[in-house]
Amino acid sequence: MLTVHGTAVSGNCYKLQLLLELLGTPYRWNEVDIFSGGSRTPEFLAKNPNGRVPVLELADGRVLAESNAILCFLAEDTPWLPAERFARAQVLQWLFFEQYSHEPYVAVARFICRWLPEDHPRRAELPKLRERGHQALAVMERHLADRDWFVGASASVADLALFAYTHDADRGGISLHGYPAIRAWIARIAALPAFVPQAT
Amino acid sequence: MLTVHGTAVSGNCYKLQLLLELLGTPYRWNEVDIFSGGSRTPEFLAKNPNGRVPVLELADGRVLAESNAILCFLAEDTPWLPAERFARAQVLQWLFFEQYSHEPYVAVARFICRWLPEDHPRRAELPKLRERGHQALAVMERHLADRDWFVGASASVADLALFAYTHDADRGGISLHGYPAIRAWIARIAALPAFVPQAT
Repeated sequence: MLTVHGTAVSGNCYKLQLLLELLGTPYRWNEVDIFSGGSRTPEFLAKNPNGRVPVLELADGRVLAESNAILCFLAEDTPWLPAERFARAQVLQWLFFEQYSHEPYVAVARFICRWLPEDHPRRAELPKLRERGHQALAVMERHLADRDWFVGASASVADLALFAYTHDADRGGISLHGYPAIRAWIARIAALPAFVPQAT
Repeated sequence: MLTVHGTAVSGNCYKLQLLLELLGTPYRWNEVDIFSGGSRTPEFLAKNPNGRVPVLELADGRVLAESNAILCFLAEDTPWLPAERFARAQVLQWLFFEQYSHEPYVAVARFICRWLPEDHPRRAELPKLRERGHQALAVMERHLADRDWFVGASASVADLALFAYTHDADRGGISLHGYPAIRAWIARIAALPAFVPQAT
């Protein structure tokens, strides 16, 4: 059986939970407490030397890191990852957009607001993080203005990856008020059969 | 014919040049001057609303953004991207590592050192960028200690993506002195038939 070594409140880990539930794939969840150093133990670093959750462990012990790489691995040969070459590349385009232009702002703002004390010096980063977060949301809003899904005519792992932190952007002080197309897309994802909300 | 809209001194753009040369694929290079707003014009934003180079334009006008997604698209059905499911996922793992844990530090340090004035306030970011850059290099060094290539027995797009900024890390004040396995791997890439060095 597959094992996800992950942290339930992490959007990067929630991505995997969501896809596995939508696929109906059995899996075991090993909760890693990243707040008390759980991703820095020798055991964890042996699985991912980069010290980040999530990590997928296969039944034979092979391991894979990086949430979006794991999504692609799990989605191979399913409707969640197109087989056609250009459509597949478009999915990858949005997955890299998510990790480079979206997650470092939207997810980090959420992290600072939810888990750091009110007087923590990292709160000084919030204005810049929110500005960049809104830039990413504006790119998404424009793309979704005349589409239901990021790539093609049905949901793909690109939608799930972008959903993971977008749906919770407000917790980082990044309001979705000005993004009607994004809010409609969030509602479409939440209405998918077997959808599970994120642990809070 | 394929067109790359790119900036020669950008490592993210060099990745594409390098793969296209190694593949022997004909292409046209449209140099975009990002330093004078070339990636912010209406024409460019119509190709990539995220305003970043490189962009690949196919003969039929379709466009693709995100350097590592483009690498995968170009490498499909070649030895540069494994067909086997787990090996392919491992390549993606390193591509996401590069964009999340490596490029934002190694490339940004290089950018600040090469193109911003000596008294620019962003120079204050350098110590943190260099610390994180060394963390990424340490992960790479450990992985390469008993391997010639990042995934499998031959070079893949994972190697090319990581090579793009690693080989030039010193320009950002991130010395490769302490990384003998990385330096040997750089020499292996530079010895590949049809290898081209980056424009300076």
